[in-house]
Amino acid sequence: MAILTFIGAGQMASALTFPTFENGHEIRLVGTPLDRDVIDGLRKDNFHINLKRTLHDGIKYYQVEEMEDAIAGADVILGGVSSFGVDWFAEEVLPKLNKDVPVITVTKGMIDREDGTMMTYPDFWKSTEAGKDLNMNAIGGPCTSYELADKDHSAVAFCGTDIDTLRYLKSLFETDYYHVSLSTDVTGVECAVALKNAYALGVSLAVGLAEKREGIGAIHYNSQAALFGQSVREMRRLLALAGGQDDNIVYGAGDLYVTIFGGRTRKIGTLLGRGMSFDDAMQELAGVTLESIVIATRTARAVKALAKNGKADTKDFPLLMHVDEIINQGKAVDIPWTAFETETIL
Amino acid sequence: MAILTFIGAGQMASALTFPTFENGHEIRLVGTPLDRDVIDGLRKDNFHINLKRTLHDGIKYYQVEEMEDAIAGADVILGGVSSFGVDWFAEEVLPKLNKDVPVITVTKGMIDREDGTMMTYPDFWKSTEAGKDLNMNAIGGPCTSYELADKDHSAVAFCGTDIDTLRYLKSLFETDYYHVSLSTDVTGVECAVALKNAYALGVSLAVGLAEKREGIGAIHYNSQAALFGQSVREMRRLLALAGGQDDNIVYGAGDLYVTIFGGRTRKIGTLLGRGMSFDDAMQELAGVTLESIVIATRTARAVKALAKNGKADTKDFPLLMHVDEIINQGKAVDIPWTAFETETIL
Repeated sequence: MAILTFIGAGQMASALTFPTFENGHEIRLVGTPLDRDVIDGLRKDNFHINLKRTLHDGIKYYQVEEMEDAIAGADVILGGVSSFGVDWFAEEVLPKLNKDVPVITVTKGMIDREDGTMMTYPDFWKSTEAGKDLNMNAIGGPCTSYELADKDHSAVAFCGTDIDTLRYLKSLFETDYYHVSLSTDVTGVECAVALKNAYALGVSLAVGLAEKREGIGAIHYNSQAALFGQSVREMRRLLALAGGQDDNIVYGAGDLYVTIFGGRTRKIGTLLGRGMSFDDAMQELAGVTLESIVIATRTARAVKALAKNGKADTKDFPLLMHVDEIINQGKAVDIPWTAFETETIL
Repeated sequence: MAILTFIGAGQMASALTFPTFENGHEIRLVGTPLDRDVIDGLRKDNFHINLKRTLHDGIKYYQVEEMEDAIAGADVILGGVSSFGVDWFAEEVLPKLNKDVPVITVTKGMIDREDGTMMTYPDFWKSTEAGKDLNMNAIGGPCTSYELADKDHSAVAFCGTDIDTLRYLKSLFETDYYHVSLSTDVTGVECAVALKNAYALGVSLAVGLAEKREGIGAIHYNSQAALFGQSVREMRRLLALAGGQDDNIVYGAGDLYVTIFGGRTRKIGTLLGRGMSFDDAMQELAGVTLESIVIATRTARAVKALAKNGKADTKDFPLLMHVDEIINQGKAVDIPWTAFETETIL
């Protein structure tokens, strides 16, 4: 039995209490400043007001000011913040951690540097003074929190630089419904699963386009599949640019698949595809965190910076560039179909 | 304006009358011996009884015994038979064709040879006496017939050995909703889109498994995404074994996506996932042509033959092997999740 302290009581971290608690570990779930009501609710009856699932009785709950108690004696720290909590995690959490205790985070995303190179969150945290000596690992792959909580089979990848740490973490988390692959290619895994957010928005445009043509509720898959294929093509190119191994497209494609069918990103893509302006669509989804907007913007910015330095060609990323135009330049949806066409001569 | 003769009045060939007729070509649609009622119906009011769409008025319809009239003077022959009509096409159609007239076929699938090598249908037809001098091309990629008929955007690949022929064919077929890439990697394109049938069955097992657990109609995507990712992994390995270029996974993944959501293969996978035996599932779907069963069997047999010759390892294809066990050895569905787990050490 180990002691696992989860920092952030968001949906994914909270869903991960299921496999870990069921494996017999002590689980300490700590809310961020934004999770006060979540923790209050959990303390009352174990019901998570956002995940809308009842967590196992026996999990220990902490408000943010009790974080140090929760960290004391922990064998593993799980970072459960969203991409909007990355700086908070760096400033408020990392300085409290012990370098001998491995950290594993569920935050998906990446930061683009001015020269166009892309930096994963584990690398960002390692680049800080408080994080530089930490044993930092991360979880990628197709897994939505609701379905994990419902024990649907989920296959993920744990990545980090030390394979022994990864094997230890796997031993704590894996169950007969939570399946874990391991990889020391942190850049590859993290980029693959970050990129899918931008492309899930791209594929979802087709959902709205079909509805625009035939009425709300009309569903077609040819156009979604065309954009899915183009997404796989561009994601493979981006993985190569970021320096990740090509095989990570397995996580990227799987994660793209599950994201297209799960919630927020699909909603914004559908609204845009129907012909709504970006500003109106954002207003309709007010209050919903949209990591896809952030990641699409950052990825497009990275490609454009790399192109400026002669290290990439924006023409290789027509779908990403179009998504960027829509969300950052107010352009109307007009899928560049002919730009997707290729001629392969052996 | 060109004269295009379509041999086979199945759903895909008939759907392809839309872009070609709209481009101003003369379209001659010839039924196989199985299409007699289809042609009779079309002659009456242009309504296709299987596609359930009204074709353009002006298309010329032919019964099989009128095939030679339809072929006379044609600029292009389109082969529209299903994989169950491959031999009929070789015996009854190829001998009637002129070697100066390009042929393009929509039949997806492949034939496994005894040594485990996989042969595409264009290569099979080229291997016959009547076909050896023909200019044989094929259409691959994600495109269901209904949605093409409804003018949903569809992106496909035309493949063949001569790029000029491919460019000519593209000029006849492409419209603002039918988008065509070209490739001389016939093996790569054809294998990628053949394989997806086997894997669409594999992914659909998750649909049924979720229903078995939670009741019919329950939908989860984590497990589908896990199997989708594993399918992409195995399809890339199979493409490499067949000698196709890796980039064809773009067509394979897109085609897998559209096949999972379209009809017959999903039905059999779902029934099996719910726990129905293969024999009972086939009985429930009696009369429905199930190319996925044929292609899964052939692909598994090819991998096993290659493995016997030391050219492949069946352990690299755990999902395909499990699908094969289910459909050919009566095994119950029991997804080998741990066999999908990988350890990547850079």
